[in-house]
Amino acid sequence: MKKDIIKNQALYQYPLFFDDVRKNLIRGDRSGPGAYKPLRQGAELLGDGKVRFNYRPPEGSNSVVVRGWGGSMPNSYELKPDTDGYWSVIVDDIGPGFHYHEYYVDGVKATNPLTPYGYGGFQTVNFFEVPGGEDPEFYLLKDVPHGTIRMDLYKSSVTGRWRNCYIYTPPGYEENLEKRYPVLYLQHGGGESEVGWVWQGKVNYIIDNLLAEGKCEEMIIVMNNGYAFKDDGTSHPARGSLDEVIVQDCIPFIDKKYRTITHREFRAMAGLSMGGVQSNATVMKNLHIFANLGIFSGGFSYKATDYDQTELFNNPDEYNKQFKLLFVAAGEQEQPMCDGLSRELDELRQKGIRNVFYSCPGYHEWDVWRNACREFIKLLFRP
Amino acid sequence: MKKDIIKNQALYQYPLFFDDVRKNLIRGDRSGPGAYKPLRQGAELLGDGKVRFNYRPPEGSNSVVVRGWGGSMPNSYELKPDTDGYWSVIVDDIGPGFHYHEYYVDGVKATNPLTPYGYGGFQTVNFFEVPGGEDPEFYLLKDVPHGTIRMDLYKSSVTGRWRNCYIYTPPGYEENLEKRYPVLYLQHGGGESEVGWVWQGKVNYIIDNLLAEGKCEEMIIVMNNGYAFKDDGTSHPARGSLDEVIVQDCIPFIDKKYRTITHREFRAMAGLSMGGVQSNATVMKNLHIFANLGIFSGGFSYKATDYDQTELFNNPDEYNKQFKLLFVAAGEQEQPMCDGLSRELDELRQKGIRNVFYSCPGYHEWDVWRNACREFIKLLFRP
Repeated sequence: MKKDIIKNQALYQYPLFFDDVRKNLIRGDRSGPGAYKPLRQGAELLGDGKVRFNYRPPEGSNSVVVRGWGGSMPNSYELKPDTDGYWSVIVDDIGPGFHYHEYYVDGVKATNPLTPYGYGGFQTVNFFEVPGGEDPEFYLLKDVPHGTIRMDLYKSSVTGRWRNCYIYTPPGYEENLEKRYPVLYLQHGGGESEVGWVWQGKVNYIIDNLLAEGKCEEMIIVMNNGYAFKDDGTSHPARGSLDEVIVQDCIPFIDKKYRTITHREFRAMAGLSMGGVQSNATVMKNLHIFANLGIFSGGFSYKATDYDQTELFNNPDEYNKQFKLLFVAAGEQEQPMCDGLSRELDELRQKGIRNVFYSCPGYHEWDVWRNACREFIKLLFRP
Repeated sequence: MKKDIIKNQALYQYPLFFDDVRKNLIRGDRSGPGAYKPLRQGAELLGDGKVRFNYRPPEGSNSVVVRGWGGSMPNSYELKPDTDGYWSVIVDDIGPGFHYHEYYVDGVKATNPLTPYGYGGFQTVNFFEVPGGEDPEFYLLKDVPHGTIRMDLYKSSVTGRWRNCYIYTPPGYEENLEKRYPVLYLQHGGGESEVGWVWQGKVNYIIDNLLAEGKCEEMIIVMNNGYAFKDDGTSHPARGSLDEVIVQDCIPFIDKKYRTITHREFRAMAGLSMGGVQSNATVMKNLHIFANLGIFSGGFSYKATDYDQTELFNNPDEYNKQFKLLFVAAGEQEQPMCDGLSRELDELRQKGIRNVFYSCPGYHEWDVWRNACREFIKLLFRP
């Protein structure tokens, strides 16, 4: 089992072709036609919890350091030169999960071209994965039917600019032309972009796998860019005007172009961190449009007086009629947030307000959000 | 006109949200809620051919250099510290076009998070654009109907691995359910990936704009990853086994999932550089499948004895019956390649072999490939 996971490591990685490139092409040390030398992977899983980091700095460099972003990779490690131009280090104290990490060459931050990267913290950033948890392969590309990810452009009447969104349609969407689908609007966090749920989150593989096991409903997932600011400076400084963009621009665009079910009970919004805050605001301000809300590692509080939600949370009957699913999740190492959310959701349940709280081991990181999203999707749009 | 181009600079850039982020969010110097300070753009067009590069190195850095990749940005420039943490330099000797460029902080290569980036040279690499040429806006996002870019996965029987491809479907594809479309298979160059024609090439905007002006036929464009190597080491060391993957795996997948016209006259393959070599090989080895070929800055020679093309090029009648379009292009500064190709194509025409040669000012860079692709698309699949 462990061996297979290691062998499948390429599947954890974007781009998919990485394995093809690594085996067959080299940079800078091609000594003649056919003289190919395999590249080292940036982060190699050696088994038994060991990881080797490999980096090729410029000749004459004096130090190479790899530094985690905290969470389950809190430390920095010094690499030492090997004989072939690479510097490397083997470590054994990195926990399972998704790890953003940075390289510093003589103190200057650099990106490792031999390691997958995503967009996070407003920058290109390397990541790698240490498989773990109860079901370490739930977000992997498997031999199952696959949906399609689309990129669509729509013009925002709110910001005046064209916007890009990613859309997942499930396997069979192209064939079952009479079928209509519920829609989940799914948001990334601060510093990320609309590609985050695909490149880092692997949400398409997660739902492909759930569908293959019959564990969730078919749905369309729309991933918008979370930054939406009006030129006149009147947008909320943190949330921006995403709620208006979603309601006024994106939903009409999606409902026109795709075969959606437009009833509010078949529309959901969810997000992680900043995206959770935005989802909360958007849904609570537009209960005539949404009946489902997911908040992962976000800023939910039923005591907050924004968006007129107080009245709703004081009226369990009305709430339970309006809301199909309120799902809140956090990583168990996100403290005091996780315990605080758990307590608040519990209080709501005691008041008769139906909701689901989910937690799993982890920090403010993509492995928590993947798990949270999977559990949310399993419950969403159930008959 | 020039002012509009500068104002529209965000449209040259991926990601689209860059302008939103830049105006409203900051990194590292947020001094309190609401205290936002605009970010500087990495490469600012100041007009009159002037460009300012801005970079924020770590405190205590001693030197920041920006270096072009050659072509119309052959030089390096030293940035000097301003008073606000940025280092900058204003230069006026960079020609029009698409410019990959790298930053070096105290000699270490770094990526500028304030500048768009793509995947090229097997790495994450910054780029910016200096608009120019006869029609400087042909590859910009405009207020016209837009097609959709999709990402699809298919399993290769050749490599045994799942592969990702990008697919452009034209505006109206979702509505006109009876309509079937011709297909162009379009390849990136060495060191790039299947995202290159979208992120750097803007091929979706190019064809959206052509369609809006009635200057080309509607078509599906399939962009495959160009690296395809068998585990047993039997693949061609440079071209790989892409030809087999396209023919055995990708075309059947596309023809099943999309509403394609499957007749060979309505199927084309084209590519740039390495992708041109691969397209040449794939089409010549599979004339029962393809009747159209485009080669941009590639390795075409009608005298080459690979793929049994010699016989075809010695038989003009047979060739003209088989081939709908042979299109070869190069940048006028790609010498001696450009003149050599022009001469060969001319010789072919003198032999009665129908073909099109196209050149435009430029080096081995994306602006040449965008122009070449546009001209190719205008001629392709014409009744």
